[in-house]
Amino acid sequence: MSPAFTNDQHLNDVLESFDHATNPRLADVLRSLVAHLHAFVIETGLTREEWMTGIEFLTAAGHLCDDRRQEFILLSDTLGVSMLVEMVNQHASDGATEPTVLGPFYVPGAPARAMGESIAQDDSHDDEVLISGVVRSSRGEPLADASLDVWQVTPKGLYDVQDSTITPMSHRGIYRTDADGRFAVRTTIPVDYQIPTDGPVGKMLAATGRLSWRPAHTHFMVSYPGYRTVITHVFDAASPHLKSDAVFGVRDSLVVDFAAKELSFDFVLDPIT
Amino acid sequence: MSPAFTNDQHLNDVLESFDHATNPRLADVLRSLVAHLHAFVIETGLTREEWMTGIEFLTAAGHLCDDRRQEFILLSDTLGVSMLVEMVNQHASDGATEPTVLGPFYVPGAPARAMGESIAQDDSHDDEVLISGVVRSSRGEPLADASLDVWQVTPKGLYDVQDSTITPMSHRGIYRTDADGRFAVRTTIPVDYQIPTDGPVGKMLAATGRLSWRPAHTHFMVSYPGYRTVITHVFDAASPHLKSDAVFGVRDSLVVDFAAKELSFDFVLDPIT
Repeated sequence: MSPAFTNDQHLNDVLESFDHATNPRLADVLRSLVAHLHAFVIETGLTREEWMTGIEFLTAAGHLCDDRRQEFILLSDTLGVSMLVEMVNQHASDGATEPTVLGPFYVPGAPARAMGESIAQDDSHDDEVLISGVVRSSRGEPLADASLDVWQVTPKGLYDVQDSTITPMSHRGIYRTDADGRFAVRTTIPVDYQIPTDGPVGKMLAATGRLSWRPAHTHFMVSYPGYRTVITHVFDAASPHLKSDAVFGVRDSLVVDFAAKELSFDFVLDPIT
Repeated sequence: MSPAFTNDQHLNDVLESFDHATNPRLADVLRSLVAHLHAFVIETGLTREEWMTGIEFLTAAGHLCDDRRQEFILLSDTLGVSMLVEMVNQHASDGATEPTVLGPFYVPGAPARAMGESIAQDDSHDDEVLISGVVRSSRGEPLADASLDVWQVTPKGLYDVQDSTITPMSHRGIYRTDADGRFAVRTTIPVDYQIPTDGPVGKMLAATGRLSWRPAHTHFMVSYPGYRTVITHVFDAASPHLKSDAVFGVRDSLVVDFAAKELSFDFVLDPIT
């Protein structure tokens, strides 16, 4: 009888099956995915039962997905994959603002807000804070008429799109910098909130002793023609979850003191080279 | 401004998040999965659009899964992962019968069949073949009263469980070896068949120029107390798809000539040590 077929021979057969793909990028992505999935199975000595647990996990996640719920994005978030995709795509230089995840609650087309105006357009804003600063290039020039798209949870811990009792677009807005690159954004003090825990991702977090909280933050997407758009958050130093963000988005350079009520934060964009 | 957070620091944060898991095996499996997913993203420089394509692929696969369709198993099969799990779990020695995938059509509790009886209990069997041989240990002893669970597509290319017009259990059966370890299984000549192509896995195969055929085969699950169960197929040498099995299950040692009508094949089991 012939010697047993090796794991390497098997991997090679699967990799070669993509040799006739007309899209070479698709073939490369699939080859890399296959090589890493095979290495994972071999490294862990994955049992049939564990493999089936994985199939059942993915199936349950798929059945939960609809127009309002995306359990696969939540899985990607909680395994640090979403954050890594931003790190790989935003390519921040050492001087530029560090990126973090876009998250599922960004909505294009938020209303324009004036300098110093509040994003909070409903009645829920007892406790407001003014975030002001400069948008500049990593070479030092201030960027006039740069765009800052800002969004955040309400004090109840929900985004406007998550709660039909909240006025649409009432906790988001688009600001522009002045001739000196200055901006001023008023908002409510953000609060910590939990990601959805009623699905398989919640079970995974519970089974591994992980928390489901995101530390309080305000989202910013800062863009200027000819520069790399920065997608990031500004986090509240007072949050108890800065060291246990469920989606691994916190960076020390993004943490500020919201309790000060008036705080300064500059955004630094890399030119597209 | 501080130096940009590195991909390694980020990976380390995600790996450490599993440090408080009460099930150390679960933590190890997740750490290995995370390390490989991160390496995949970095190695490919995965774009946001490609990441979103992946999320949409998984979502479409999830929505297709029900009691009769399992698109995630099909995905695992077509990426060679299911076959690798069998290779890792069956641990065949060089002398033992090579394993292949169980597949989704195994049904426990098939009827007992006598020596030489046909698994085909309906009227569809024009062209039959007799497979006979010995079940023995990899140390050479014949194994008396070993069990051979056999199943196969009908000449129409469907398993009994796939087609409500086929009598249940009419193309499967359980045989026993005699005192000399001999068995004799009669069956119809198997035919090539296609895996389901109407979902995202079918689109992936089409987009990469791959075929969706499985080469003709008869399934065997051979077991004996104290020995590792062998889950395998016997393939027909006449199939045009031996080099392009959609699930990468073919091994040279498992290919026989069904056209001979009477063929010999021995199964060799490893003792559990």
